[in-house]
Amino acid sequence: MATVKLPEDLESDPKVKAVFDDIRKTRGSDFINNVWRYLAFDPALLEEVWYDIRDVMAKETLIDFKTKEMIYAAVSIANSCDYCVHSHTAAAKARGMTDAEHAELLRIVSTAARTNHLLNGIRPPLDQAFDQGFDDIDVAD
Amino acid sequence: MATVKLPEDLESDPKVKAVFDDIRKTRGSDFINNVWRYLAFDPALLEEVWYDIRDVMAKETLIDFKTKEMIYAAVSIANSCDYCVHSHTAAAKARGMTDAEHAELLRIVSTAARTNHLLNGIRPPLDQAFDQGFDDIDVAD
Amino acid sequence: MATVKLPEDLESDPKVKAVFDDIRKTRGSDFINNVWRYLAFDPALLEEVWYDIRDVMAKETLIDFKTKEMIYAAVSIANSCDYCVHSHTAAAKARGMTDAEHAELLRIVSTAARTNHLLNGIRPPLDQAFDQGFDDIDVAD
Amino acid sequence: MATVKLPEDLESDPKVKAVFDDIRKTRGSDFINNVWRYLAFDPALLEEVWYDIRDVMAKETLIDFKTKEMIYAAVSIANSCDYCVHSHTAAAKARGMTDAEHAELLRIVSTAARTNHLLNGIRPPLDQAFDQGFDDIDVAD
Amino acid sequence: MATVKLPEDLESDPKVKAVFDDIRKTRGSDFINNVWRYLAFDPALLEEVWYDIRDVMAKETLIDFKTKEMIYAAVSIANSCDYCVHSHTAAAKARGMTDAEHAELLRIVSTAARTNHLLNGIRPPLDQAFDQGFDDIDVAD
Amino acid sequence: MATVKLPEDLESDPKVKAVFDDIRKTRGSDFINNVWRYLAFDPALLEEVWYDIRDVMAKETLIDFKTKEMIYAAVSIANSCDYCVHSHTAAAKARGMTDAEHAELLRIVSTAARTNHLLNGIRPPLDQAFDQGFDDIDVAD
Repeated sequence: MATVKLPEDLESDPKVKAVFDDIRKTRGSDFINNVWRYLAFDPALLEEVWYDIRDVMAKETLIDFKTKEMIYAAVSIANSCDYCVHSHTAAAKARGMTDAEHAELLRIVSTAARTNHLLNGIRPPLDQAFDQGFDDIDVAD
Repeated sequence: MATVKLPEDLESDPKVKAVFDDIRKTRGSDFINNVWRYLAFDPALLEEVWYDIRDVMAKETLIDFKTKEMIYAAVSIANSCDYCVHSHTAAAKARGMTDAEHAELLRIVSTAARTNHLLNGIRPPLDQAFDQGFDDIDVAD
Repeated sequence: MATVKLPEDLESDPKVKAVFDDIRKTRGSDFINNVWRYLAFDPALLEEVWYDIRDVMAKETLIDFKTKEMIYAAVSIANSCDYCVHSHTAAAKARGMTDAEHAELLRIVSTAARTNHLLNGIRPPLDQAFDQGFDDIDVAD
Repeated sequence: MATVKLPEDLESDPKVKAVFDDIRKTRGSDFINNVWRYLAFDPALLEEVWYDIRDVMAKETLIDFKTKEMIYAAVSIANSCDYCVHSHTAAAKARGMTDAEHAELLRIVSTAARTNHLLNGIRPPLDQAFDQGFDDIDVAD
Repeated sequence: MATVKLPEDLESDPKVKAVFDDIRKTRGSDFINNVWRYLAFDPALLEEVWYDIRDVMAKETLIDFKTKEMIYAAVSIANSCDYCVHSHTAAAKARGMTDAEHAELLRIVSTAARTNHLLNGIRPPLDQAFDQGFDDIDVAD
Repeated sequence: MATVKLPEDLESDPKVKAVFDDIRKTRGSDFINNVWRYLAFDPALLEEVWYDIRDVMAKETLIDFKTKEMIYAAVSIANSCDYCVHSHTAAAKARGMTDAEHAELLRIVSTAARTNHLLNGIRPPLDQAFDQGFDDIDVAD
């Protein structure tokens, strides 16, 4: 159950059609997943979100596509976004993430969460070394 | 201000000394940052946490060291752990993350947070395609 | 699936009946949604929660009803409470929130989440100006 | 302590100068708070974030300026972003939020958090009424 | 730096004085910590929060005082509330929590956070057994 | 819908069989709930998680079994982990938690969340008293 109604006859709105066409072209696929279909309840919001996501995630940047999706999935897990965890795990797999890499991603995310809570409970002072340009620090945690 | 007292004469406890020696050897550095010093208030907990972190983060695994630290930092940001954000951003830099890659990491994390909240507000149904083995899906979100 | 059993014959408990009667009177409706029915597993807890919510949300206060529900929905999104997002989005709509206002609410919430994560990643120092009584500051972020 | 170095001679970069000029013009003030100064470590990121925030928060939209800042502050509280809570509480005050309204905002946010946790603990089923267009529902929670 | 101004001459307001007197009496101590002093910026809010906390935490209930403070601290860690982690860790210690119990609390909280993230990443289906009254289930996770 | 495929013929993998046998022995029950079955998609991860959980939660330690499950459930509520809330509420009930204790747990968790948000919104300074060894402090919040 969503909090907005799925618009009928989605692509009769020219803004929606333009975004959907760009999604199809960018991905080389006719499949439009639900996030975009429901976001069409407000075509301006749909536009803003799609072009922003596309520029960060679907364009060549410094970080490779698979890694970007794995970072995105990690944040989505921490923020407990059900839909996002599914869509970005699927996207990471589509970008080549193997089951073994998926397991390692989950290992890192859950280990991080463990120490995040541990240190939020202990609250040790920051090391001054962290403020010295990070040039010659060897820290693993 | 921490919630535990920093133990005096830390390395007089043999468990603590063994962990600190392993930290120094693993990192090739004499620097022991505060998280390990404060965790020494309970040597058994220190041991568990260090060996777990070391095996995930400081050993050769499928994902390279820099990427692992970037994923760890991403989760720490989402969980609002002040110390962890600092230590793992520093660690990622020590592993070679450039300023431009740092900016891109922040761009991905903050974009993910934006759509995490958007979809937690809209709650679209999961696409059945996500359950078909993820073999032939092209999704960016 | 809930973690508590829905009590049978709910209104046979006089505390529960009194709260349900007050809900009906306050809302001018016979509809009792699930949160109140399941909370009846502990009539004292039901009482505490209802009267607290009622006084904040269903009485005339400084902030108008529609805005209060929108703020409540915003917090519920950030805390990833599925039921609460649905019930308070519905309540905001019942109080007059249009689809366009809903879209704007989601735009604000998701933009806030984006900068929340960005600044939790950068951790800039607080501006001293924030401590001067906020009298003459013009900040948008 | 921030995770990025504050760039020296900030406005020697033309992108940074253009954003800072736009901030000054939009706010009618010479004060540039730290978030923008530190974001200048990556001028492209600074640009993206400022223009996005400006369009949502500093332009006339459906929701009035004070309410927008209050919603933004509410989300920032829930996401535990120290800097954001300060800057957007200050911004809401600059937009006219009184101490009494601030207290009411905190009352709504903290009451919402209470029921968010309560219902995340009980997990009652969604009411089917929430899916009927929200037309004739009277729910306060 | 707080977002509200500490009121001057706090106890000149009779509502504030009554709450402070009740805090002193309940605790058998003259020490009033900052949360109550700053909450006095809105005496009605101070009243609501104190009496609610007092009834849950400072009265004899089913769960003993030390355990209640440990649960409260656990939630405060997960919600990343700096002040609350400090005050409720201190309160648990005042109620008899030893260093070894503190370490065990942190071990449980951080292990829970680890599996919370792991399962939010995997999203296994709920076991139907969880819905059968919990009468004959032996689950540790 | 899970993000990993449930492996077929689970116990044909000797690592998985060994863990499942240990789960059955530890619990004295043949019931293996879904978390362990899905985790078997990566036998090494399954092993790490089970033995870690078992040592914290299923062995005699300082804190009794029922209280440990209640703390675990509290953290799971705050982290919005649907599966974990169900499994650890069930586990607490299997360890003897009554409905009245469950209601009190929810009361503490939700009251904590309320003040967590309130103080994350006000951000009062830490009391210096919290740093003096916690020896003679009487604080309830």
